[in-house]
Amino acid sequence: MADASAIHVNLGARSYAIRFDALQRCALAMEQAGLLPGRCVVVTDENVAPLYARALTQVLSERGWTPHVITCPAGEQTKSLHHLSALWDEILGLGIDRRTPVLALGGGVVGDLAGFAAASLLRGVPLVQVPTSLIAQVDSAIGGKTGINHATGKNLIGAFHQPTLVFADPAVLQTLPAREWTSGLAEVVKHALIASPSFFRFLQTHWTRILDRDVEIVPEMVARAAQIKAKVVAEDETEQGRRAILNFGHTFGHAIEREAGYGAFTHGEAVTLGMRAALRLSAHLYPDADFTAARQLASALPVHPNPAQLDVPTLTKAMYFDKKVKQGRLRFVVLDEIGHALVRDVQDEALLADCWAAALT
Amino acid sequence: MADASAIHVNLGARSYAIRFDALQRCALAMEQAGLLPGRCVVVTDENVAPLYARALTQVLSERGWTPHVITCPAGEQTKSLHHLSALWDEILGLGIDRRTPVLALGGGVVGDLAGFAAASLLRGVPLVQVPTSLIAQVDSAIGGKTGINHATGKNLIGAFHQPTLVFADPAVLQTLPAREWTSGLAEVVKHALIASPSFFRFLQTHWTRILDRDVEIVPEMVARAAQIKAKVVAEDETEQGRRAILNFGHTFGHAIEREAGYGAFTHGEAVTLGMRAALRLSAHLYPDADFTAARQLASALPVHPNPAQLDVPTLTKAMYFDKKVKQGRLRFVVLDEIGHALVRDVQDEALLADCWAAALT
Repeated sequence: MADASAIHVNLGARSYAIRFDALQRCALAMEQAGLLPGRCVVVTDENVAPLYARALTQVLSERGWTPHVITCPAGEQTKSLHHLSALWDEILGLGIDRRTPVLALGGGVVGDLAGFAAASLLRGVPLVQVPTSLIAQVDSAIGGKTGINHATGKNLIGAFHQPTLVFADPAVLQTLPAREWTSGLAEVVKHALIASPSFFRFLQTHWTRILDRDVEIVPEMVARAAQIKAKVVAEDETEQGRRAILNFGHTFGHAIEREAGYGAFTHGEAVTLGMRAALRLSAHLYPDADFTAARQLASALPVHPNPAQLDVPTLTKAMYFDKKVKQGRLRFVVLDEIGHALVRDVQDEALLADCWAAALT
Repeated sequence: MADASAIHVNLGARSYAIRFDALQRCALAMEQAGLLPGRCVVVTDENVAPLYARALTQVLSERGWTPHVITCPAGEQTKSLHHLSALWDEILGLGIDRRTPVLALGGGVVGDLAGFAAASLLRGVPLVQVPTSLIAQVDSAIGGKTGINHATGKNLIGAFHQPTLVFADPAVLQTLPAREWTSGLAEVVKHALIASPSFFRFLQTHWTRILDRDVEIVPEMVARAAQIKAKVVAEDETEQGRRAILNFGHTFGHAIEREAGYGAFTHGEAVTLGMRAALRLSAHLYPDADFTAARQLASALPVHPNPAQLDVPTLTKAMYFDKKVKQGRLRFVVLDEIGHALVRDVQDEALLADCWAAALT
């Protein structure tokens, strides 16, 4: 079992800790990460602010920090140049210096937006990720990817900027809307499928309690999923190679998000459908492997909108816009067994159409 | 004497070469740096484009590249969010991938703007600096600093993004306007003062020929100045410590640029005045050192506008906005002898006023 209280992300001079603890100990953890109390900036959104902003600023103030809170609108639309520019203006207006940390209190949207602001202000100020969604605690807050969307695609503008600390309180996950919880579970299942047969068995065994957010199970599940992300990131900081396996289901999934219009499917729902397609592709490429249990778990992840309306030729075309496409070739992360992923080029459009059909019906 | 054809910037996985050669060999050098011919983007400005854009694109095309040229207005105003956003739109509209290099053909403005675009597109694409000004060849194109200006100050938004290659043709310096040449010499003198007594003697010995841009002297001068920048950068990639010595004269100089309005003084002229102030400060702090020769060379650097009109209390206040100010303390790079720099905190405003007076009269 993974240590449920701290994970070390080993990146040489940019190493950092992921700590799982009550929000009340966040300021202490910041000191332990080498940040000296002074001014700090807390970026959050309108959903999270009423729940946790006051608790966090109170803790920060008690330990000598002077927090300034900026509350953005909730939702994917906030990952825009408009909101980034507004953050730059407000934070630079405070007269910050290079030691002033930016805390991202929220889910993936806040983490990506505030993270890119931290990456680009004064060519980089310290970033503390305080993820409050499941997807952020196990995935997006770990690994340094930050950025905003562009008219031509998601996450096309951004930076790799490693946080100084990731501080995650699993208790806050109890207040997540149901659809965000199950969307986050898609990335949890993905981490198991690409990297850990034993974690996959853990998910199978405890699946009902996991869907119910059982407080006895959630902290271990979150820590084990985060551990996988941390390990893959440490092997490949800027996605030159190995890190690509984290995109299992994502080449298909990004096409769904793009085609359906961002927000119609949650990211996790698109990844769920994408994993179903990628499992079909894996079965084509590795006919001797048994993916039955993987298909069952991927099918147990709820997807709210009906995907049958999506147009397969348009989805295939949309995949060519993915920023991981290199020199016009489509690449996919596939499994050769449960718990082990690899990258393959695929040119066969009839095969891809079959994978889409398996995922969408 | 430094090797006049290539310098290695030692930054581990982010190491790169600075090559001094005729523009015609740029595409070959890109291949040697590991870039594979395909689409590339050349960002330049309206002054440089008529002189060198066609020559560069021709060479690129001959070796299998498909260059797309983007020409920005010349001048500091171009280092703005407006122009950055336009670059993002145009380059993403091309459907680039993560291997598509951005070439910055121009001076410091183009290098900083195109460099930050390269840093932020798809979380980082390869950057080739092709500096055409003296200040860019010996200073701004080396070391990975990129960025744009903000209403609250210069270079407040940006990233450290190391180039894959710096390719500098000293012959293009012959077409520089006179004031840009002498402005670039300010950084050359600065490099000698902070790091190399022997290079300082070289500058003294050849000063008249240097002012005349003697083609026998310029390539060695450029290579030796660039070598100093490369060495300091290699010791401190992200300006945590040692790299600060490159800001000799800059805390004063930035205040002049801010107070006089950007463009009234060139950056080099502001640095020249700043170095005169910093030499006065050095003489206060190290009364046994002899800075006579340094003062003479700093006085031999032309400054076109009359600095006597500048208001000293306003300049002192402006220094507190510098992004190197940490926790509200003013820090200065000073010399304890010619060729050796260090950082000192200074609180004495009367002393600073005396330094300003020495520099501005």
